[in-house]
Amino acid sequence: MAPRRKKVYEGKAKILYEGTEPGTLVQYFKDDATAFNAQKKAVIEGKGVLNNRLSEFFMTGLTNIGVPTHFIRRINMREQLIRQVEIIPLEVIVRNFAAGSLSKRLGIEEGTLLPRPIIEYSFKNDELGDPMVSEEYIAAFGWASQQDLDDMVSLALRVNDFLSGVFFAVGIKLIDFKIEIGRVWDNDFMRLIVADEISPDSCRLWDTKTGQKLDKDVFRRDLGNLTDAYTEVARRLGLMPANTTSLKPTAIN
Amino acid sequence: MAPRRKKVYEGKAKILYEGTEPGTLVQYFKDDATAFNAQKKAVIEGKGVLNNRLSEFFMTGLTNIGVPTHFIRRINMREQLIRQVEIIPLEVIVRNFAAGSLSKRLGIEEGTLLPRPIIEYSFKNDELGDPMVSEEYIAAFGWASQQDLDDMVSLALRVNDFLSGVFFAVGIKLIDFKIEIGRVWDNDFMRLIVADEISPDSCRLWDTKTGQKLDKDVFRRDLGNLTDAYTEVARRLGLMPANTTSLKPTAIN
Repeated sequence: MAPRRKKVYEGKAKILYEGTEPGTLVQYFKDDATAFNAQKKAVIEGKGVLNNRLSEFFMTGLTNIGVPTHFIRRINMREQLIRQVEIIPLEVIVRNFAAGSLSKRLGIEEGTLLPRPIIEYSFKNDELGDPMVSEEYIAAFGWASQQDLDDMVSLALRVNDFLSGVFFAVGIKLIDFKIEIGRVWDNDFMRLIVADEISPDSCRLWDTKTGQKLDKDVFRRDLGNLTDAYTEVARRLGLMPANTTSLKPTAIN
Repeated sequence: MAPRRKKVYEGKAKILYEGTEPGTLVQYFKDDATAFNAQKKAVIEGKGVLNNRLSEFFMTGLTNIGVPTHFIRRINMREQLIRQVEIIPLEVIVRNFAAGSLSKRLGIEEGTLLPRPIIEYSFKNDELGDPMVSEEYIAAFGWASQQDLDDMVSLALRVNDFLSGVFFAVGIKLIDFKIEIGRVWDNDFMRLIVADEISPDSCRLWDTKTGQKLDKDVFRRDLGNLTDAYTEVARRLGLMPANTTSLKPTAIN
């Protein structure tokens, strides 16, 4: 990162800098991993490089099928140029199988197929621990309008169908994922686009045959080397040379 | 195929037999290839085996995301058990890029990205050469109701998002595809499900980097060995041992 650039925002895993063109930002992927609302922290060498490349891959695929995203282009190993959006302060979570907080709250075993994909929302607020909120809360507090919510559900379900296909092709089950959504204005016409990142930090990914976890739960639950897990995802998607078993950042396609 | 079974229907590439349970059929995949309304014909050794396996793979993936299909289970190398449906006499075609008849009729170069996915319909009738029909025709002649059409469009777009993801993961562009849709009754409740097959016979698939065709156009246009092309698709999807270059039916996973 060039020190001359103005930092706009620093989050747990990424930094946003002013972009090179109006209406753009540079999104820098850190190696920092956090869990349980940042009570657990570590630096995982290579994670930022992998997530930058993987998020580029998924966002490019979404763009190809007409799902708008903030991604413009990758700049280097750790940075990508993105559209500046007015972020909606919600995490939009899509669940295909029970896991994590849903399993805990409802007592449903992890990995149980849900009757249909379930969409839920968390209010993005670190101090409050990103609490789950209902559509009633969202509309009443004005975080998003009913029209926004309808559009967000449509977007989230299309992302789910597409990503389910991507992972099905490479022997991975998409258990759940979260996206963030932002508003942009094109000629005074507002629309919603997928923002933030799509990566093994934001998805639960289980190997179809073995059930092995290939996502941030490896870190949350101390199940092994996180970089190895993310590298395996990148390798299956053709983003690493086939014989790569551990991260060599310069070897990413 | 067991000679004792009653043949229900024989098409150009498949035969339907009475199933082992009420409401089921056995779908047998032939090696016959036809094009240009059966004016061009050949027997392509191994095609039926590959399409049986590939259609199983895609239909299973669709079932996983909640898109209902006729597929129940694969029986053997050439046969699968399917639900009996009342087939809607339409081919539902989804186009992401210009190719084939659209390119010819509108003078748009093959491979041109379309402004958005375009859905079109052909009336299934060999004598008439499966003519293209509008929604007006379909509603007026009673082949499907307006509600059916709305549901068919929703199904077709979900199939498109999912298959686009599957092929994106393995370096293939989904140019276009066709599906057939049938009616089933569950407790007197009618719903529409994906029927027929999903395979390189029914999709246009181009290698993302080279543009090489990996679908039935290889046969239509004499571009090489069709079995090799289909085997390459199966190989990328993990359905063949990685070192397989030509079809060994017994080697399919």
